[in-house]
Amino acid sequence: MIYFCSQCGKPVRQRVPAGDNRLRHVCDACGHIHYENPRLVLGAIVEWQGRVLLCRRAIEPRAGCWTLPAGFMENGESTQAAAARETLEEACAHVEHSRLFALIDVPQIDQVHVFYRGALAGGKHAPGEESLETALFVEEQIPWSQLAFRTVRLALEHYFADRRAGVFGQHQLILEALC
Amino acid sequence: MIYFCSQCGKPVRQRVPAGDNRLRHVCDACGHIHYENPRLVLGAIVEWQGRVLLCRRAIEPRAGCWTLPAGFMENGESTQAAAARETLEEACAHVEHSRLFALIDVPQIDQVHVFYRGALAGGKHAPGEESLETALFVEEQIPWSQLAFRTVRLALEHYFADRRAGVFGQHQLILEALC
Repeated sequence: MIYFCSQCGKPVRQRVPAGDNRLRHVCDACGHIHYENPRLVLGAIVEWQGRVLLCRRAIEPRAGCWTLPAGFMENGESTQAAAARETLEEACAHVEHSRLFALIDVPQIDQVHVFYRGALAGGKHAPGEESLETALFVEEQIPWSQLAFRTVRLALEHYFADRRAGVFGQHQLILEALC
Repeated sequence: MIYFCSQCGKPVRQRVPAGDNRLRHVCDACGHIHYENPRLVLGAIVEWQGRVLLCRRAIEPRAGCWTLPAGFMENGESTQAAAARETLEEACAHVEHSRLFALIDVPQIDQVHVFYRGALAGGKHAPGEESLETALFVEEQIPWSQLAFRTVRLALEHYFADRRAGVFGQHQLILEALC
């Protein structure tokens, strides 16, 4: 929530600006409109000799659960660079030859999750600050019941399905709301 | 730029928060960290009987130039819904059977542009509030020199190349900075 104007510090209120059709946080003192937009989360499916790299989270949310390296994209970087940066930060691992794999809409939390797939350079990995441990898993050993996020499960399911089919696609998916 | 805290209204300053490695706008009064992230722009390449729908912009930037229907994604919607909404708002047109076509990074302005491709329902279109006119163009008549944005040109170039090849792909591209 936005309570005060980022430009002048006065209180804002929610109203529909002229020429718009949505509620925005508007400053009546200086006129500034505070737009809020979905955020991009970038992640990577990184493979080494048939195994996929996962990280066990050291931080909330879902501390102790397993995840693909992923996190919020930063200003000034590309989606591919963001996926590589997250992999380096969370798993001390370098991604090679990465390609866009899946775009997953998560409208219920105003996010879009994008996953690249690539190769793990040299097979090297180690836990970064936000990870308790990192490990490489064959498909049969993926800890499905201990995955941190539903988009991670969805991306992995499509990854292994494509690998079995022998052709990697690019996937556009929507994470349905849990009822 | 952010000058005042959205939570308490006090001035913020730029510093690297503990456990972070980037400058953020931080409020020393209440501790709130204001993260800024890239924004998503969603657009659509909509075809009717071999022609592609373009809009001539009524507003800045690039008023008077031609563009694909496109605009900032809103909270609470999917990427596909955002592309359809922009097409409806700018060209009074409904998109059918849309599929992800291109993701174009524009890191120099902290944006990611995503284009869907689809069919124009009933062939109907008309200028919305932000358009001077709308029109359907065959490839040879696209006003290349009067396009509003470089990502629109890039998306259209890949679209027509794919159409000539007889197979539509999904493209991951980076818009290089102009020197």
